[in-house]
Amino acid sequence: MNNDLAPGGKLTGDALHQLIAKLYPIMRSITGPGVRESLAILQTLAPLDIHEVASGSQVLDWNVPDEWHFKSAWIADASGKRIIDSADSNLHVVNFSVPVEGEFTREQLLPHLHTLPDQPESIPYRTTYYAEQWGFCLSHKTLESMGDGPFQVRIDAQRKPGVLNYGELFICGKSDREVLVSTHICHPQLANDNLSGMVLAAALAASLSTSTPELSWRFVFVPGTIGAISWLEQNQSSLSPIVAGLVITGLGDNSDYHWKKTRDGSLWIDQLMAQVLNEAAPSTHTLLPFSPYGYDERQYCSPGFNLPVGRLTRGVHGTFAQYHTSEDNLDFVTASGLSQSLELLEKIAAAANRDIIYQNLSPYGEPQLGRRGLYSALGANNDPGKLQMSLLWLLNQSDGQTSLSTIAAKSGISMSDLDEAARLLEEHQLLAPVRHASAD
Amino acid sequence: MNNDLAPGGKLTGDALHQLIAKLYPIMRSITGPGVRESLAILQTLAPLDIHEVASGSQVLDWNVPDEWHFKSAWIADASGKRIIDSADSNLHVVNFSVPVEGEFTREQLLPHLHTLPDQPESIPYRTTYYAEQWGFCLSHKTLESMGDGPFQVRIDAQRKPGVLNYGELFICGKSDREVLVSTHICHPQLANDNLSGMVLAAALAASLSTSTPELSWRFVFVPGTIGAISWLEQNQSSLSPIVAGLVITGLGDNSDYHWKKTRDGSLWIDQLMAQVLNEAAPSTHTLLPFSPYGYDERQYCSPGFNLPVGRLTRGVHGTFAQYHTSEDNLDFVTASGLSQSLELLEKIAAAANRDIIYQNLSPYGEPQLGRRGLYSALGANNDPGKLQMSLLWLLNQSDGQTSLSTIAAKSGISMSDLDEAARLLEEHQLLAPVRHASAD
Amino acid sequence: MNNDLAPGGKLTGDALHQLIAKLYPIMRSITGPGVRESLAILQTLAPLDIHEVASGSQVLDWNVPDEWHFKSAWIADASGKRIIDSADSNLHVVNFSVPVEGEFTREQLLPHLHTLPDQPESIPYRTTYYAEQWGFCLSHKTLESMGDGPFQVRIDAQRKPGVLNYGELFICGKSDREVLVSTHICHPQLANDNLSGMVLAAALAASLSTSTPELSWRFVFVPGTIGAISWLEQNQSSLSPIVAGLVITGLGDNSDYHWKKTRDGSLWIDQLMAQVLNEAAPSTHTLLPFSPYGYDERQYCSPGFNLPVGRLTRGVHGTFAQYHTSEDNLDFVTASGLSQSLELLEKIAAAANRDIIYQNLSPYGEPQLGRRGLYSALGANNDPGKLQMSLLWLLNQSDGQTSLSTIAAKSGISMSDLDEAARLLEEHQLLAPVRHASAD
Repeated sequence: MNNDLAPGGKLTGDALHQLIAKLYPIMRSITGPGVRESLAILQTLAPLDIHEVASGSQVLDWNVPDEWHFKSAWIADASGKRIIDSADSNLHVVNFSVPVEGEFTREQLLPHLHTLPDQPESIPYRTTYYAEQWGFCLSHKTLESMGDGPFQVRIDAQRKPGVLNYGELFICGKSDREVLVSTHICHPQLANDNLSGMVLAAALAASLSTSTPELSWRFVFVPGTIGAISWLEQNQSSLSPIVAGLVITGLGDNSDYHWKKTRDGSLWIDQLMAQVLNEAAPSTHTLLPFSPYGYDERQYCSPGFNLPVGRLTRGVHGTFAQYHTSEDNLDFVTASGLSQSLELLEKIAAAANRDIIYQNLSPYGEPQLGRRGLYSALGANNDPGKLQMSLLWLLNQSDGQTSLSTIAAKSGISMSDLDEAARLLEEHQLLAPVRHASAD
Repeated sequence: MNNDLAPGGKLTGDALHQLIAKLYPIMRSITGPGVRESLAILQTLAPLDIHEVASGSQVLDWNVPDEWHFKSAWIADASGKRIIDSADSNLHVVNFSVPVEGEFTREQLLPHLHTLPDQPESIPYRTTYYAEQWGFCLSHKTLESMGDGPFQVRIDAQRKPGVLNYGELFICGKSDREVLVSTHICHPQLANDNLSGMVLAAALAASLSTSTPELSWRFVFVPGTIGAISWLEQNQSSLSPIVAGLVITGLGDNSDYHWKKTRDGSLWIDQLMAQVLNEAAPSTHTLLPFSPYGYDERQYCSPGFNLPVGRLTRGVHGTFAQYHTSEDNLDFVTASGLSQSLELLEKIAAAANRDIIYQNLSPYGEPQLGRRGLYSALGANNDPGKLQMSLLWLLNQSDGQTSLSTIAAKSGISMSDLDEAARLLEEHQLLAPVRHASAD
Repeated sequence: MNNDLAPGGKLTGDALHQLIAKLYPIMRSITGPGVRESLAILQTLAPLDIHEVASGSQVLDWNVPDEWHFKSAWIADASGKRIIDSADSNLHVVNFSVPVEGEFTREQLLPHLHTLPDQPESIPYRTTYYAEQWGFCLSHKTLESMGDGPFQVRIDAQRKPGVLNYGELFICGKSDREVLVSTHICHPQLANDNLSGMVLAAALAASLSTSTPELSWRFVFVPGTIGAISWLEQNQSSLSPIVAGLVITGLGDNSDYHWKKTRDGSLWIDQLMAQVLNEAAPSTHTLLPFSPYGYDERQYCSPGFNLPVGRLTRGVHGTFAQYHTSEDNLDFVTASGLSQSLELLEKIAAAANRDIIYQNLSPYGEPQLGRRGLYSALGANNDPGKLQMSLLWLLNQSDGQTSLSTIAAKSGISMSDLDEAARLLEEHQLLAPVRHASAD
């Protein structure tokens, strides 16, 4: 993908969009070959390890289901014409359906058909992972044009023992404190939810791998719910280094950004996200309170684990028309929406890595900055300028307990400006790092 | 009163209003036969015990006054015509007046006459419990039509040693933690303030007595100030089980509800009342800060006792024209106003009793609700439905420290819906009660 | 100045303005004869001690500069006409300039000339304390009318070893807890910033000296930055009695009042100032968050000292056109602006001195106020009146932990009304002082 990199090596929005287009036609589910094929494509971006958990394994309160091997699914009318065919859209079959073959009257078929009467052109996305059921999803318009039957119905699919797969990538930083980035990988043919999250997580991992970050970063690519539960089962004894986490999904559309807070609501990552979003998208982001519904934050934030995990999305599940329908397609995610999100994720990572608590080494009165060339020789001007304000804020607040993100929030100065000024003060032996903010 | 019960045994608004009408003509004061007669009528609703404190007893910083025995009071003009007569309204005599008989000029009489110039048709309510005084209350219109006199004046009343009475009813619950409900019983012929409080307290007590509540409930029916002080004097060594308290008064009019917070302002009962009022009257209630003026919360919240007591009213004393006047009559309180308030009080009691802190027994990840028939088999729908949201909120928040009322406030789900869902989770061994919220 | 005192001995606004007019023409700087002459004039108001720190002394991270002895400065055109002359305004010379004498072309001179293009009539104020520089300040209009030169330039000034002076006055109160009042004294010919602060600090000191205040008060009159740093150096071992501090400056204009909070933002003095400003200027004051830019609060609030010091001004530095220009003159400060500020400072001092925490000595129930003549004999009135509300608030809140200023904030009753009522309750043995609020 080298020819799609922007100058400086960053993936362009177009490159990200092309990767999504490559993943889009693969029939994914929570288990089976679709997941493996998708993870293999992500490995071209970042060197994920692929893990396996055997079907039938007990994971926390759950059991890992069999693999789902899907070939095709269709409904034909009396004339043999295929009215619905999974060749047209992977969404047409209720995901994880058991096989079926036979003739059905309209009345017999209807309980197995799912439509969106309010969005008559769209095919909904439905699943049946944990029940022995089958079904089809179709546009309401198609349903209304179907005759009385009889209909030939075929789902050629198999549930059989195998494994559940997930991907994982650990980037070892200078500190063993970890930031968890989790994204779900099980949705078939939905571009924003969650091919956008998959490619952006891999792209961020690639970007962070180019040097040794301050914090360690752990990326997990898991089938929704059962994948997160499997990962938690397998890693429950090694969760303590996690100081923050982001579930990322739905980041390729053009909606405003939303940070759903951690279960606590006022942890370090909540403060950091508020600050970074305020800098990056001051008037167009929203902080949402925690709720127990949503994506895999449901598992990470269950009371037994209570991990410091929130969720970053653009549009919020259930609040936009394209959600879980055939309209969440390659037009709904845009190159610009993706590249903005990658830029935001890189800002978040940079801010997280640099959120240091400093100690002023000359804390009694202001040190004489002018003598060190850090202050204008001409006094009594109205406006001290951004660098001088950064220096003054850092010196005043660096009492060994106040982090850059806290100073940024108080001062209105960006974290990157403060970071730059802090390095200058370090050079002049006026400031020394004490610890990372996440160690509070 | 059986024929006035609604289906299900609840008192109707009409029945409550009739009871008020029966109490209305009795000449009450802080002591004397009027209090005894009134308590006897309340005993037809709920089995109060009637207590006595002898006149002259020291109670905290006060002394119990003598009983007031009132017969009649009038002012006649020179022709012998009675211009003012207590037979027309008990408010005409300043309550607790010493006896008087004689002829007075207008000038001599004026200092003893009380009117409301701004409300010329209304008779004010005035008292003189702790001074050797007498007086009359009359409409300003009557005052203006009185001639120059001389006037014959008679108050046939006696202060003599006896007792102060108060009523008390203890409903022993499963826990010895108590909720105190206090209402004053001393006002003569004022329907809202406080015959409404008297009959509603008795009705709530009757309703709570039909089964064993979770908490214990203590109802006290006391003459204002001196009665509360007497009750506190007699019970000062047994106040520690009180975990919450409500002074209730003025609940029969049609004004919005007002919760005056406890002295602390953020106790369990404050949170509970905010939640219940939010559910029952979301846009038409007000939370008032504590102030040391008002009803008997003044005594319960004195700094030595500092009990967790707030006050529930509809209209607030001193803020509506009918307050402490002859306009606070049988038309001012309505059957619907009373039945709404009884319903609200029962909701408060139910919410208080059921405000349990639970522990999630499967706290690592979400338990698999689908396997237990508690979750839809068809996944990926937009809207999880109220029951499923209740289950998720309860499981996520039940960490052994978070009460139903806290979860209700966070989730926007009503306490009764959460309560129902909690019982379902208890049946499935997913939730276990830890303690009552008031035990925080 | 006796004939300028108002009845009762308080300085009038006119007297304060006349004092400012006397100080206005003196050429002040951070060191030198101007400071000494100015302090001597302030001594006519209040008996300041004048301290000296030798040039070259190390003070914290700084060194005390030499004295600046200024005689005159001018620029003459080719014809010998003086275009700019310090005889017209002390602002014309960049303060602390090194001497210069010679002929300059326009191009050579320009880097040494400072104007305000946006305010073409005004002369800016500039300084160069810590660099070997010289310069002139002039109106932009004058600059534009200057020809091409050559120009004769002369600054007759000397930097030579001597001392830095500051003034200090300690008023020993009943308690050794101190309130620090600091004002800067180095600005030449700027009436509001800071001749207003200098004369008002002296006037407040004079006023507080007339009796023994509850708290001790320490007034310091220091050259900006280096003076505060010198004072901190010399007093660093005796700062612990300081329970509050106010930097005062810019108090003679007619802008609204601004309290810039302490570094902590919620200390006793912050609460007190919020209360006093709310009483004195309810709709026309602003509470500003702390920031590390401003006046000498920068030094007092450096993290090593972290003194409980905020700042009181009317207009805020850098936000009004007259700031640090020749427009900050004797017309900009007014007698009424000054007398309002003196009145406010006296209210602050009174409130600070009287902010006592009391204990209710009859805390169980309300004490019977009527028996003590403290409550109306006629009951059931709507409005209890201000004194009775003050008594009730004090009795209810005085639990040995709640200060008058807290009660004032909760009740909406002024501190002086509460103070008066508290004294009445003390007389009746119902209230006893426990400690001063600053001892929290």
